[in-house]
Amino acid sequence: MGKNYWISDKPLVIQEVVDLVTRRNAGAINTFIGTVREFTKGKRTLYLEYEAYKAMAEKKLEEIGHEIKEKWPEAETAIAHRVGRLEITDIAVVIAVSTPHRADSYEASRYAIERIKEIVPIWKKEHWEDGEHWIGDQKETKQGIPAKGDASK
Amino acid sequence: MGKNYWISDKPLVIQEVVDLVTRRNAGAINTFIGTVREFTKGKRTLYLEYEAYKAMAEKKLEEIGHEIKEKWPEAETAIAHRVGRLEITDIAVVIAVSTPHRADSYEASRYAIERIKEIVPIWKKEHWEDGEHWIGDQKETKQGIPAKGDASK
Repeated sequence: MGKNYWISDKPLVIQEVVDLVTRRNAGAINTFIGTVREFTKGKRTLYLEYEAYKAMAEKKLEEIGHEIKEKWPEAETAIAHRVGRLEITDIAVVIAVSTPHRADSYEASRYAIERIKEIVPIWKKEHWEDGEHWIGDQKETKQGIPAKGDASK
Repeated sequence: MGKNYWISDKPLVIQEVVDLVTRRNAGAINTFIGTVREFTKGKRTLYLEYEAYKAMAEKKLEEIGHEIKEKWPEAETAIAHRVGRLEITDIAVVIAVSTPHRADSYEASRYAIERIKEIVPIWKKEHWEDGEHWIGDQKETKQGIPAKGDASK
């Protein structure tokens, strides 16, 4: 099961993640693709750098897969997260969840991204036009105040 | 906008659909991939045939895109639906919706698949081990009773 959850410094390929969950008894595959957005609250991002504690991050991704299996026993999940320098529109994370019926695929996929933001040790350094800042990838910050998981340096 | 919505008799390529909605101001892309499932209520499907009234089906897919734009003005949507003979695990439909933030991408994507099942004139012929039957792609049937949109022949 571990091969379904990985951290990579190479560009992520959506099809590879989807292939891992495609199977004869699934009629639905939901994917979530997180990409680097140029503007956040009016601030322009030039590029991002992601860093992860790789072994722990992969373990946590797999743990999320186990949580999904408990809640949606028929679901199969794969998650890949990229690290390193990412340009605008580059893919930071791909989640794929297959289930027999579609409602479960949406719910389990949504659960996965929320849990990634909660428990996976990945940080991003935002390079803005006017400076840079390390924040947790993690819970979206409000009013510029880093949320839980913050790793400002 | 029309080029984002199409019916094809060729295998669908997920990346091509995703590319149409990838853009600098999106941080989230949700995709829904509908695949041919082997078992439905204990009955084994050998393969499926999809037929569409192509011009009308593409028009209806585009209409769904407009509905999404009204509800989620920052969303970009692309939808491809396949017709012809599909084997188990083949992709019947790919929806991709990009939005600045993730919650909207899930909601709009879910909206799209539900609307496809409601308004798009596509029918499938199920080839089971013990026979065949035309049904609407569309609202899942209950207890073997074809739902609205049924086109049994």
